[in-house]
Amino acid sequence: MVRSVAKGEATRQAILARAFELANVGGVSALSIGRLAEATGLSKSGLFAHFGSKEALEVAVVEEAARQFVQEVMVPALRQPRGEPRVRALFERWLAWGQQPGGCFFVGATAELDDRPGPPRDALVQASKDWIDALATAVRIAVAEGHLRADAEPEQVAFEMYGIMLGSHTFSRFLREPDALARTRRAFERLLAAYRAPGHRARPTS
Amino acid sequence: MVRSVAKGEATRQAILARAFELANVGGVSALSIGRLAEATGLSKSGLFAHFGSKEALEVAVVEEAARQFVQEVMVPALRQPRGEPRVRALFERWLAWGQQPGGCFFVGATAELDDRPGPPRDALVQASKDWIDALATAVRIAVAEGHLRADAEPEQVAFEMYGIMLGSHTFSRFLREPDALARTRRAFERLLAAYRAPGHRARPTS
Repeated sequence: MVRSVAKGEATRQAILARAFELANVGGVSALSIGRLAEATGLSKSGLFAHFGSKEALEVAVVEEAARQFVQEVMVPALRQPRGEPRVRALFERWLAWGQQPGGCFFVGATAELDDRPGPPRDALVQASKDWIDALATAVRIAVAEGHLRADAEPEQVAFEMYGIMLGSHTFSRFLREPDALARTRRAFERLLAAYRAPGHRARPTS
Repeated sequence: MVRSVAKGEATRQAILARAFELANVGGVSALSIGRLAEATGLSKSGLFAHFGSKEALEVAVVEEAARQFVQEVMVPALRQPRGEPRVRALFERWLAWGQQPGGCFFVGATAELDDRPGPPRDALVQASKDWIDALATAVRIAVAEGHLRADAEPEQVAFEMYGIMLGSHTFSRFLREPDALARTRRAFERLLAAYRAPGHRARPTS
């Protein structure tokens, strides 16, 4: 019994990983149980048993994206020392996440779901807010460690980091500016410099 | 003859204004000659005579959006004194432009057209680059006037202004953060402060 539950979970996870890949390239809305059946070789009725509806599948894909984001961006960054090194690591891994073939899943999904109220949009808003909170928390710690200025407002710094990253996506993917990545890093360095506590020296992680 | 050319131009302009309104709310891709015929009371064959194809209509709508943006954002800002006042006016009018019912036309159209190569996307990239160039030019003038630091790189400042504005859209329209507008202005003030020439005092325009 325990074994079959574990197997069911592993199957669901494998399906979701494939669904995420499809959604990352073709978009969340283009994802259907039929397309997923083709891509996984599973039956449509079996997939319906797993997800119940296209909408539930979309929610599951957004949650899968958030899970992968936590694994690839947050978990490794949290291994960095508290303070500026961790803020830097979060930003660099976030930047790397957006370099995937389909670009940043969340940027694409936001564009798609913005005008479509419902559970998939709600799940995406939740994932975005969780991420903004995580950025703000890392900034708050950097203030407490004396790396950033005492008057740096964590939510404001998180907002500004978010803006730089959105600019990076537009300049690199839409406008195809060859210097987009360099501009992104320069903007982030300027942001850190503006908020850095007097007396704290930057120690960039490699 | 001159008169009928002028009348034809006025008709085309009126159609485009309506097409822009439709596209601003429903998206560029959802715009069709059929829908435009309904909205204007003109015949589909008459509209085909004006635009030739759906694709050409999309290009015309992007160009109409760019024309309106120039009228509403750039022209009034260029009446402000050269330097920081003009950079501020460009930013504030740009912010106001994005407060339209459908949000910023360009942000929505970018999301729609990003993965659809062709003349409408090309027109949109062109309009975006023209705007970034205009921002960079205003910054360059502010450097020349001694308002911003001599080492401020105009294209970098334009990139950072762009990022703040994209963050503003995501926080206000997608995340519905009540303090999005305040965060946007604070980020812009910090940007100006970081690049302001020593000795130049900010003189905010009202």
